[in-house]
Amino acid sequence: MDKVKTTTITFSDLADWEQRKRAQLINSLGGFKSVNLIGTVNNQNQTNLAIFNSVIHLGANPPLVAFIIRPDSVERHTLENILETGYYTINHINEGIYKKAHQTSARYPGEISEFDATGLTAEFKNDFLAPFVAESNVSFGVEFKERIDIALNGTTLMIGEIRLINFPENCLCEDGFLDIEKADSVTCSGLDSYHKTVRLSRLTYAKPDTEPTEMEMRYRE
Amino acid sequence: MDKVKTTTITFSDLADWEQRKRAQLINSLGGFKSVNLIGTVNNQNQTNLAIFNSVIHLGANPPLVAFIIRPDSVERHTLENILETGYYTINHINEGIYKKAHQTSARYPGEISEFDATGLTAEFKNDFLAPFVAESNVSFGVEFKERIDIALNGTTLMIGEIRLINFPENCLCEDGFLDIEKADSVTCSGLDSYHKTVRLSRLTYAKPDTEPTEMEMRYRE
Repeated sequence: MDKVKTTTITFSDLADWEQRKRAQLINSLGGFKSVNLIGTVNNQNQTNLAIFNSVIHLGANPPLVAFIIRPDSVERHTLENILETGYYTINHINEGIYKKAHQTSARYPGEISEFDATGLTAEFKNDFLAPFVAESNVSFGVEFKERIDIALNGTTLMIGEIRLINFPENCLCEDGFLDIEKADSVTCSGLDSYHKTVRLSRLTYAKPDTEPTEMEMRYRE
Repeated sequence: MDKVKTTTITFSDLADWEQRKRAQLINSLGGFKSVNLIGTVNNQNQTNLAIFNSVIHLGANPPLVAFIIRPDSVERHTLENILETGYYTINHINEGIYKKAHQTSARYPGEISEFDATGLTAEFKNDFLAPFVAESNVSFGVEFKERIDIALNGTTLMIGEIRLINFPENCLCEDGFLDIEKADSVTCSGLDSYHKTVRLSRLTYAKPDTEPTEMEMRYRE
């Protein structure tokens, strides 16, 4: 972009902002985010589906993933079901389902499954306990491992181990890289903005004495 | 995308994968990620700059942000400097600097600043202790608040409070949403893939009895 004037906002400026406006700005700051549907079921076979934009990679060996739950009634069913059953699914959102995915954040009564309310399809497969989203192209099943409560603001970090992975067979590269752009996964920013992506490039592993170069995409045959 | 055959990989399949290939797949799974440069300085005024793809929003009130540090020598300077001084900056990456940003992940000797090695410019402003990246369009200064060590795999969650925010004045919307796509911020997937974005839409707040609708972008005059 052309260089435009920079606005600088201090902590004390921010304190004067109206609460929802401040929430919009602060939610936009970290950068683009993953956006996923987390599927769960309780012991009475009631399914639940909720959208989260805080799923992060925690480590590859063991394969660990984490996400943040806020002390909020919409997300509480996800927390309760995970603690009750020990399992959940994480499902990428694509352009075809992002509006339905967003709609899962509405405050439906407890007896209504967001699958039914939004028209997304619960799919049980490979004997995994929690429901996958059939319309999702990339999804994985997770076994709950640890809950870390963050006293600073009452949020909870949920950590789990990846047990089962589903993706379109033409999206896997020879080196193990999964091309989630080819799988139509979307990203989000702030609280409510959804985006497709356009790859700039994959870059080679950085070494002190060489410039990184662009890698060719080599899909597994 | 057209429906193609789904590949399913189980936890035990994954155990047979070569380590780097498994790391590529698992790093790709969570979805698109934020990608930021974190700038620090030690008490001897030696600056450090490192790339992170795990920055997440933790809460708006107080304004908290978190990221993961791995038990790894490249990232250790960032951890040491934050613990020593209590401050750091988080700087968005744009198309013009993503290759230099990637290059900060090379294992430079401790006496070399990644600012000097990559040609990015350290900028000190508003009396903030840690250096900003002058070439970054969106950046913010953070005060360290809490460190949470995750025993499961030796990673550390670093939590801080946002103290100072910089962004192009034409990117702020009336409702507080910051248009980071207009600010040229990029996203990443896996370990090494960088992407521009194309907005699908912003969606209105979800309510049980209505469909979400697309919001018009209204920038602050």
